[in-house]
Amino acid sequence: MSSRVHIEVPENSGFGPTHLPYCVFRPRGGEPRVGARLGDSIIDLAVALDDPMFAQPSLNAFMTQGPQCWREVRELVHAAAETELPATAVHSVRAVHLALPVEIGDYVDFYASIDHATAMGRMLRPDGEPLLPNWRHLPVGYHGRAGTVVVSGTEIRRPHGQLRTASGAPEFGPTRRLDIEAELGFLIGSGSAMGTPLRTGDFADHVFGVALVNDWSARDIQGWEGQPLGPFLGKSFATTLSAWITPLDALTEARIPLPPQDPAPLPYLQDSAPWGLDIDLTVEWNGHTVTTPPFRRMYWSPAQMLAHMTVNGASTRTGDLFASGTISGPERHERGSLMELTWAGTEPVDLDGDKRTFLENGDEITITASAPAVGGGRLTLGEVHGRIAR
Amino acid sequence: MSSRVHIEVPENSGFGPTHLPYCVFRPRGGEPRVGARLGDSIIDLAVALDDPMFAQPSLNAFMTQGPQCWREVRELVHAAAETELPATAVHSVRAVHLALPVEIGDYVDFYASIDHATAMGRMLRPDGEPLLPNWRHLPVGYHGRAGTVVVSGTEIRRPHGQLRTASGAPEFGPTRRLDIEAELGFLIGSGSAMGTPLRTGDFADHVFGVALVNDWSARDIQGWEGQPLGPFLGKSFATTLSAWITPLDALTEARIPLPPQDPAPLPYLQDSAPWGLDIDLTVEWNGHTVTTPPFRRMYWSPAQMLAHMTVNGASTRTGDLFASGTISGPERHERGSLMELTWAGTEPVDLDGDKRTFLENGDEITITASAPAVGGGRLTLGEVHGRIAR
Repeated sequence: MSSRVHIEVPENSGFGPTHLPYCVFRPRGGEPRVGARLGDSIIDLAVALDDPMFAQPSLNAFMTQGPQCWREVRELVHAAAETELPATAVHSVRAVHLALPVEIGDYVDFYASIDHATAMGRMLRPDGEPLLPNWRHLPVGYHGRAGTVVVSGTEIRRPHGQLRTASGAPEFGPTRRLDIEAELGFLIGSGSAMGTPLRTGDFADHVFGVALVNDWSARDIQGWEGQPLGPFLGKSFATTLSAWITPLDALTEARIPLPPQDPAPLPYLQDSAPWGLDIDLTVEWNGHTVTTPPFRRMYWSPAQMLAHMTVNGASTRTGDLFASGTISGPERHERGSLMELTWAGTEPVDLDGDKRTFLENGDEITITASAPAVGGGRLTLGEVHGRIAR
Repeated sequence: MSSRVHIEVPENSGFGPTHLPYCVFRPRGGEPRVGARLGDSIIDLAVALDDPMFAQPSLNAFMTQGPQCWREVRELVHAAAETELPATAVHSVRAVHLALPVEIGDYVDFYASIDHATAMGRMLRPDGEPLLPNWRHLPVGYHGRAGTVVVSGTEIRRPHGQLRTASGAPEFGPTRRLDIEAELGFLIGSGSAMGTPLRTGDFADHVFGVALVNDWSARDIQGWEGQPLGPFLGKSFATTLSAWITPLDALTEARIPLPPQDPAPLPYLQDSAPWGLDIDLTVEWNGHTVTTPPFRRMYWSPAQMLAHMTVNGASTRTGDLFASGTISGPERHERGSLMELTWAGTEPVDLDGDKRTFLENGDEITITASAPAVGGGRLTLGEVHGRIAR
């Protein structure tokens, strides 16, 4: 008879039995497979649920099944977690390698924080209105590079590119303005057909879960290249995704109404149910907490982003990622990028006596987040961590 | 003994034995598989070459093999085409369904025609310099939506979206400025790792082939949404790719030097060998030839686009598509978009007595192209065709 274990959940764990986020992990010497987290343990779902859908190198086969399957699996995992599991179905999170959990389809990045967009507008257009005329009418967004979405922990190489000089001609070299963007990402589980826009009310039927995102940005490359077609190489070198995908159903207690929208959005953007989210982020720079961006301040909800993204008839696919854009609050200590936090490098941050503006080689950034959990307490979203290699 | 056939190639066929473009086709009642075209016939490569790599619903498994394999297969197909083939390995192009030939990874669209960029600049910024300061220093580009790349022949639904009004607030409705962009697309066969930029000289080792692209555009949606992050829903509803991928080796005779670049590009953008291409496009609107854009006028070569796209360390993957952006020449009859051709709708085109500016429902657009073939004569690139559904 094989041995069986009961998973103990540490007190105040952000990974209690009502959270159960998913990952793809590789046990020592094994193949990548889908896991669910409870406390500091990973449940191997292919073993625990005896289902080959989870013996896969990505969550996509599971995600594509749709909301009824997601709910059923969540209930099965919840029930399994309360019993004794075969020892072969349980791993310590510290004993495994965590892989990119999702095969990303398209990656869209929005610009949905009014405090972020206002701050960027003030810096970039000091003499004009900080918000452009379209900003309050639609969630501004653009496509990013899906192939360079990497899992938390991946080293980030400092990108080289064209940098503007005083002469007007660019020079070539490593970015001097390497920045972060603290964001929340939403992953499409069940896709939608071309020509069939999704409504805001369809959000929970199509979005599988939520992850943290660090949309690394080279501000000098971006500033030179970005007109008239938007960000390209200033962003496409890397985007870090957390290893853990929090199911939407784990965030029921975090749902809140949006702050007021003025003017009222066009009908296709009106939320039928609140999809504001009361999620608190924390950004650590070399171990120092430098900012705590509040997702509850976002102007546009993720349900509005999804409705907007498809209103022209664009399809969605399993694994598509759309992210919120930088999350910022109105206060300095709530700004979700170093651009804002240091006001374009003019107001350095004090890291233990060290005055700093943008990222230097060897710097480490860790973004964490928490939200009210179902049944009380708080859940912890999987962190995004990255170190600047050179 | 199974019957054998010899493929007859019609005189002046654009699909002679030195062209041999690839497709994915579905024979009546069968599964999708890879084919090569000779004359008006498709050779079923899984059967003719007895290789399961071609019994696949996309070219990706073949494309990922790299240039030595591409060359070997091309020689095998060429040899097979000269023999008698089993009748089961040969289909008429008219008897099969052509599918999207490639599973697209990331889709990048450039803006590499100086005549196009100049014309757009003149229309959009009549009082300023038509070219922005960065334009002659780098191939401007952005990411588009990979999930809505469709095969030639797919009906295009007129997108709805936000349109600017005189009041300043937008209204919602179908685009009134539905446009085309006649482009050439380049498909990555063998990918490259993050942190390893490709040089211009690596082009032929990584690019599998060339296709025609129609990057449908809703100019009014694009104009309202596009600041500051670039095109989004004005483009993401559909991009049409030709069903046929012309191998790079079939275009040897089309290679020409670029027009002069002034100022000289930065070293990483300098071409080690000419990758200008002498390809002539033709755009038909409801059967009338309305413009003939010349690819030879492009300012940036596809090898430069590839080097630029990866200089920041971004990886490439099998199936990534990068397109040239609208191909235009300096003359009116060489402009590759209706925006330019009708000068933002102010100079209608005469379609058999009908004065027209942008696309109406039921309109059909067909883009074709030809280039000097290896061994003389001309080859025909696979067309992109689309009809506006409603």
